[in-house]
Amino acid sequence: MRDLSSCTPAEVRQMIRNNEVKSPTAGMCHGYAQGNLVILPKALAYDFLLFTQRNPKPCPVLEVSDVGIKTLKIAKDSDIATDIPKYRVYKKGILEGEYDHLNSMWRTDFVSFILGCSFTFESALMNEGIEVRHIEQNCNVPMYVTDIMCEPAGIFSGPTVVSMRPMTPDKVIQAIRITSRYPGVHGAPIHIGDPGLIGIRDIHNPDFGDPVEIKANEIPVFWACGVTPQAVAMKVKPEIMITHAPGHMFITDIENHKLAIV
Amino acid sequence: MRDLSSCTPAEVRQMIRNNEVKSPTAGMCHGYAQGNLVILPKALAYDFLLFTQRNPKPCPVLEVSDVGIKTLKIAKDSDIATDIPKYRVYKKGILEGEYDHLNSMWRTDFVSFILGCSFTFESALMNEGIEVRHIEQNCNVPMYVTDIMCEPAGIFSGPTVVSMRPMTPDKVIQAIRITSRYPGVHGAPIHIGDPGLIGIRDIHNPDFGDPVEIKANEIPVFWACGVTPQAVAMKVKPEIMITHAPGHMFITDIENHKLAIV
Repeated sequence: MRDLSSCTPAEVRQMIRNNEVKSPTAGMCHGYAQGNLVILPKALAYDFLLFTQRNPKPCPVLEVSDVGIKTLKIAKDSDIATDIPKYRVYKKGILEGEYDHLNSMWRTDFVSFILGCSFTFESALMNEGIEVRHIEQNCNVPMYVTDIMCEPAGIFSGPTVVSMRPMTPDKVIQAIRITSRYPGVHGAPIHIGDPGLIGIRDIHNPDFGDPVEIKANEIPVFWACGVTPQAVAMKVKPEIMITHAPGHMFITDIENHKLAIV
Repeated sequence: MRDLSSCTPAEVRQMIRNNEVKSPTAGMCHGYAQGNLVILPKALAYDFLLFTQRNPKPCPVLEVSDVGIKTLKIAKDSDIATDIPKYRVYKKGILEGEYDHLNSMWRTDFVSFILGCSFTFESALMNEGIEVRHIEQNCNVPMYVTDIMCEPAGIFSGPTVVSMRPMTPDKVIQAIRITSRYPGVHGAPIHIGDPGLIGIRDIHNPDFGDPVEIKANEIPVFWACGVTPQAVAMKVKPEIMITHAPGHMFITDIENHKLAIV
């Protein structure tokens, strides 16, 4: 198998489109930003766009497509209906199925939202020597539904989902400094320390992803997470909402460092 | 007359509501952010919200109201139909009139957009010892229509309007550094130097506001400007669009320093 870490985003998108790549995209196209996907009919797009505006930490928008258009500006010659390895289709809040592509179910009234993804800030952390536990453990990041409610917008409301990375206090300070520079990919953490303060009952039993080890000298650090829209969809039950499957992201042409501010 | 610079935003909004204050708001409520206003019917709100998402430098959103709601969260007990000293009503792209309040013309389908305003970054510049020419000259900032086109969104398209502040090269460097920290109020400049490179034919003859002196050792510095939506409205001619009159801003409860990132 080719080393996908050194391929260009266009190359890997083509392989995904041809069903030659079906796996999670972590580690592919080193240096390029990956994104979360939310597809909604135009009738729901205003409420969701307003939801992202009011909740930029869980929902940092990288691009919103024009209505019915499959090619995104942040990914040359892309096709959002085929260029993600695995899609999830939610109907009235129920996960109806997972699909390789959306060709047969594409609608001319669909609007695609690409939201920034923590892979970008994890690269920045690792570049500065901060180990990321779930990457060391080769598993998914642990994610938790909190009692921090999003600002509602139209039909959309619900709890903030967070991802958690444990680290020693000196690394916590560095990680806050580094991720503050990346508001387009969730930015600074929204909580550190006691999980109970944000409504997490059992840190060892995440709602999404896998548990990771937290060592005795470590503090859990919580970032707002792009899975939030999926938790919201399950709650508010829109007619239809399509997302990426966790870990199966949209690979953009945006270089990670371009998402850093200042 | 009371010194409005030391009044609270709530106090001054009340005075404006009572028609006791009708003047431009520059200098009022020291330390608090003021905002540009755009009101549109809900039918046009998606296109405009998407326009702001695609053009965050001229259109940095501080808040979008719920449909028909006059009170904004960033201004406790506010009434957006009365709390600005002077409104402009555009119908099909024509400035139809200026009004003290909107009570008689308020519609239940109106959505209010508050966009960040350069007063915030001017405070930050002055706090670091950078003189702002139009404030020294006690006039309006000069503004120019450029040939830098905004990213279109739905019906909205048009040129970026910029504001200009001349300064010496050492101050230009500082000003870029300082304003980069304020993406919510237009952020870093979008051009420095030769006005012709962005389609400005006569720097001494601005399209909005007043001309200011540019000294021999100074470089003109151009920031994206919140008047852009008004230039866009004149071009795309929406059924109705209501804005503040230039310089007559909405005074929010947001402290300026809260808009700084990192």
